[in-house]
Amino acid sequence: MALDTAAPVSAPEIDVPALTALLDGEYAEIRDLVRSNLTAYASVLEEAERLDTAAYRDRVRDLVVEMAATGQTGMGFPVEHGGGGDIGASIAAFETLAYGDLSVLVKVGVQFGLFGGAILQLGTQRHHDAYLSDLVTGRLLGCFAMTETGHGSNVQALGTVARYDATTQEFVITTPDDSARKDYIGNAAQHGELAVVFAQLEVGDRSEGVHAFVVPIRVDGEVAPGVRIEDDGRKMGLNGIDNGRIWFDDVRVPREALLNRFADVSPEGVYESSVENPNRRFFTMLGTLVQGRVCVGGAGINAAKVALAIATKYAARRRQFEATSDTEEELLLDYGLHQRRLLPLVARTYALHFAQDVVRSQLHEVFSRAQSPEGAGDEHDRRALEARAAGTKALGTWHATRTIQECREACGGAGYLAVNRFAALKADTDIFTTFEGDNHVLLQLVAKGLLTDYASEFEDLDQLGMVRFVTNLAVETVIERTSAHKLLERVRDLLPGGDQWDQEAGILDSDYHLAMLRFREEHMLSGVARRLKRGIDQGVNPGSVFSQVQDHVVAAANAHVERLVLEAFVDRVRALPDGGNKAALGLLCDLYALTTIEADRAWFMEHGRLTVVRSKAISREVGELCRRVRPLAVDLVDAWGVPAEMLRSPDLVG
Amino acid sequence: MALDTAAPVSAPEIDVPALTALLDGEYAEIRDLVRSNLTAYASVLEEAERLDTAAYRDRVRDLVVEMAATGQTGMGFPVEHGGGGDIGASIAAFETLAYGDLSVLVKVGVQFGLFGGAILQLGTQRHHDAYLSDLVTGRLLGCFAMTETGHGSNVQALGTVARYDATTQEFVITTPDDSARKDYIGNAAQHGELAVVFAQLEVGDRSEGVHAFVVPIRVDGEVAPGVRIEDDGRKMGLNGIDNGRIWFDDVRVPREALLNRFADVSPEGVYESSVENPNRRFFTMLGTLVQGRVCVGGAGINAAKVALAIATKYAARRRQFEATSDTEEELLLDYGLHQRRLLPLVARTYALHFAQDVVRSQLHEVFSRAQSPEGAGDEHDRRALEARAAGTKALGTWHATRTIQECREACGGAGYLAVNRFAALKADTDIFTTFEGDNHVLLQLVAKGLLTDYASEFEDLDQLGMVRFVTNLAVETVIERTSAHKLLERVRDLLPGGDQWDQEAGILDSDYHLAMLRFREEHMLSGVARRLKRGIDQGVNPGSVFSQVQDHVVAAANAHVERLVLEAFVDRVRALPDGGNKAALGLLCDLYALTTIEADRAWFMEHGRLTVVRSKAISREVGELCRRVRPLAVDLVDAWGVPAEMLRSPDLVG
Repeated sequence: MALDTAAPVSAPEIDVPALTALLDGEYAEIRDLVRSNLTAYASVLEEAERLDTAAYRDRVRDLVVEMAATGQTGMGFPVEHGGGGDIGASIAAFETLAYGDLSVLVKVGVQFGLFGGAILQLGTQRHHDAYLSDLVTGRLLGCFAMTETGHGSNVQALGTVARYDATTQEFVITTPDDSARKDYIGNAAQHGELAVVFAQLEVGDRSEGVHAFVVPIRVDGEVAPGVRIEDDGRKMGLNGIDNGRIWFDDVRVPREALLNRFADVSPEGVYESSVENPNRRFFTMLGTLVQGRVCVGGAGINAAKVALAIATKYAARRRQFEATSDTEEELLLDYGLHQRRLLPLVARTYALHFAQDVVRSQLHEVFSRAQSPEGAGDEHDRRALEARAAGTKALGTWHATRTIQECREACGGAGYLAVNRFAALKADTDIFTTFEGDNHVLLQLVAKGLLTDYASEFEDLDQLGMVRFVTNLAVETVIERTSAHKLLERVRDLLPGGDQWDQEAGILDSDYHLAMLRFREEHMLSGVARRLKRGIDQGVNPGSVFSQVQDHVVAAANAHVERLVLEAFVDRVRALPDGGNKAALGLLCDLYALTTIEADRAWFMEHGRLTVVRSKAISREVGELCRRVRPLAVDLVDAWGVPAEMLRSPDLVG
Repeated sequence: MALDTAAPVSAPEIDVPALTALLDGEYAEIRDLVRSNLTAYASVLEEAERLDTAAYRDRVRDLVVEMAATGQTGMGFPVEHGGGGDIGASIAAFETLAYGDLSVLVKVGVQFGLFGGAILQLGTQRHHDAYLSDLVTGRLLGCFAMTETGHGSNVQALGTVARYDATTQEFVITTPDDSARKDYIGNAAQHGELAVVFAQLEVGDRSEGVHAFVVPIRVDGEVAPGVRIEDDGRKMGLNGIDNGRIWFDDVRVPREALLNRFADVSPEGVYESSVENPNRRFFTMLGTLVQGRVCVGGAGINAAKVALAIATKYAARRRQFEATSDTEEELLLDYGLHQRRLLPLVARTYALHFAQDVVRSQLHEVFSRAQSPEGAGDEHDRRALEARAAGTKALGTWHATRTIQECREACGGAGYLAVNRFAALKADTDIFTTFEGDNHVLLQLVAKGLLTDYASEFEDLDQLGMVRFVTNLAVETVIERTSAHKLLERVRDLLPGGDQWDQEAGILDSDYHLAMLRFREEHMLSGVARRLKRGIDQGVNPGSVFSQVQDHVVAAANAHVERLVLEAFVDRVRALPDGGNKAALGLLCDLYALTTIEADRAWFMEHGRLTVVRSKAISREVGELCRRVRPLAVDLVDAWGVPAEMLRSPDLVG
């Protein structure tokens, strides 16, 4: 007997294969290739527990090379170098790979995304001809040596130096001190032969800022002269990756080792760049690497799917305590609290999936355009893409951490056994929230973009300059843009009517949900701008002002991204043909929207956009939506198409 | 230059050794013994990463036996059997042990808390004489075989059977099916010789409910005949513990193997018990094991201290980004956002520490009384203690999970390296939220106690009966007890004045904080009662009604425990002599109280006890308190007295 005693609402019927097709979208073919590769190599999940570190690393390396041979990992490289010539497909492949062992995923990311991506995006024909075909097959493994011990997120401040020696036409790469050692570098401790090294370029007596160089770190398997490598040792997870530290002691590389797409040094030692402003040059170079963030965000979302699939299937068969019957224990998923714990996470996973579709498409478009003769495309678009990628990455990876934790707890002690997957999922994804950009730093980047409307000046400034720019100059326009009057106008696009839109609209009206999130975003931005202006007007140091409003800045960025996520979900649902799948996704979309509003209902009340009565009604409606989604839960997680071998959990999923 | 530009408020000066003495309290001596043992065996932290599973398990076993020889682990046993005769000290020792390797901690918990505790609390003289002195030294290792695969939290429904055979005067222990196999049992896979086995006792044709039996599972290192044991295999953490599964195939043990403090079977096969009602008997037996929950809660709180000590010290020396200066990067801990992330967690850790002091003292008192000739003491006290232990365990262990995660992220990529401790802390503590009682189940237990005011009928009922009792009978009295009028009366104890107390009181007045939390608790309880009554009046199945209000039930229990925690903190601060330590703890106490109110400010607004203006003022004040606590942060974490060897993290804490 089910606990749901509310008046029966006929549940929509889900067509699971059709829903999978919808989710896989245009990349169904590559996703299915990855699924079958994952299944073929499923034993790695168990080997990860059993093998010692050295053997596991080698196993992961071998597996990546074997997968590369199927074409799965090279989709993002030009066809003439053995790639697939389709950036969107390469991201879709990476996302799908997150259903499996995550050391394999990250090894692929290091090799083809970071190392390969840097050669492709920052290098020119000579580098492409020299390296791409070998790296696409995995014959040549490499490192992306950016992060330093002393300068994690602040890449612009890194300490490694590359001095041009005109007499020999070489760059001399040096690690001046231990805080400038490269750290946490994947492929460094064992497998990497080449490294793309980020260093401060010095030409003559001028420092030209951060540039990237191709530096051999191993020759015939031996560490190259002048290079010192240390193993990072055991990590929380991802122990199939050989992370390490690298020091350079006057290592000489030829002038051609500079990845010279955006800047070059002539044989005589004359520096020239197509991007004059050094800060803009730095951000332009970094911007070409945005793909990594899109990939990590998508991987986080898909790792969350694995956890939710296990916990949901378990809850639909596990009984615990007699609750309504004297003779039979109740299914976990029939408890209201259990529904509240899992189902909003299912809804948010769908929402983030569709948001990821949008950012992947935008990236595909911007980068495909960039490789066409017309060049890099509109700068405003590119900066908006970077912000969107940063924001989706932050929300997607935090979602993974939170979801995996909740799902583990929802499976009790069984969730603690390695065979039931949560151990690896939790340990391996943990770093997602801080690598490829710390999430808090990324959200501040998003907010700065919003505050300046992605102004081109943005990229002309260093970090401190950016803060000054934002706090001093951009504030007025934001305050103007987000005046109460303007806010109302923007809401009216969605909900024609008066200022009482928030009380008149239906609680299950998507336009109401969108209006609420839009209002919150703009109002928060305006609040940040006003607070910054007040501080500046009082003569406080811009940095101090910014620090004091930092939590508002992050909240505003979060509100912005959540609005984008909801828009993506609503747009997709609206575009669907009528039927069970549309009805089911409609319920989920309402559940996502209302749990998002509910989670921040204090803010809405504080800002006059939610009455007490309506706030309580929203909480009740969330409970009701959970009850309505409950019969669909297993179909909804099945539609993600996680191969059964990736779930493992023999005693949990049956 | 600091980012704090507010008008300077002179910061209190902390006397660190005096604060440590305050925190250690009456158990300073045993805590210092544990600290020096931890330091002596510090190498196990590194061995945990390096050794294979079998070697690590043996190492942990050896270490536990060596620690036992120092008297550290036997404090809770009677002096005549080689123990220390001080229950409170045994809990304090266990808490302190949580600074180190947590496999060692849990092995101690399994051996001395669960196995030893069951022999002590459920057995009688013959069992004490036979086993205690050997188990106190660790010569005899044992298991606590309660949990079964199919019945995690629902112990009363477990499936193992113990049938009395009067012809041979033996019990025959049987595992009827796989769902009744014992699972996740520490010491089972390798080291345990004896097990305390919980089984359904059958005498003649009657089932007498769950009882405990001493069953040999290994003889001279070989698995005993009729016993089958399987290794649980690799786990997320705690891999120094040999968890396993046990099946019994008609294993015969003598009549004396029944732990017969509360019930016995005569040679002829007559069952008798001092507790007539079978449900009450079950809960009485289980109640004697409450110590385990108090221990786990305390361990969670202390594991959080290790994480916070590392992250705080790191943030006080790590610089990242130029924020206020062109020449120097800013200390992490001078960023407002970073303060907001860490300092409320420091405050909550202090709050939980003092709350743990209270529950430990109560347990010490109740159990010391129980061992005196006057017997088990007041039942109401005992049930209140059980509820308090359950609630503190839930909040303490969730706090550990959340804090360790936040601290890891606050240390960026470095936090991911095993040498920096978070890997083990996170993996090992993860299970705390669901073992010794799933936290959600525990909070429901708390709520049921509150709804029935710990009525004695409570223990006469099975799970379903309890739900029916709560929903049918207890509701009226709660509704009466928590009428608006009564609520106001209770608040008036704290804040004399009118109904506007919530607007008139000072925002930093502890009585205001207490009144808010007291109001919330009582109002939530009342809401649960009203909702239950409404459902019952409509003729809905009580179980279904309870399921639908389950989130309210859990919220009410949480509100209750948070009120107890705040009371413990306020009481301790008020009792301190004036001076720097009192001032510092006062700031922290305000920070804990206001972040707790802030986190649930939506509820307070929804229930008319927080205006929008005051809600915003509280958020501002939290930021301000963070700035004021910031200069004290390192002293505050130093005062916990975590040995430097337990922090490791050479590159983070300096």
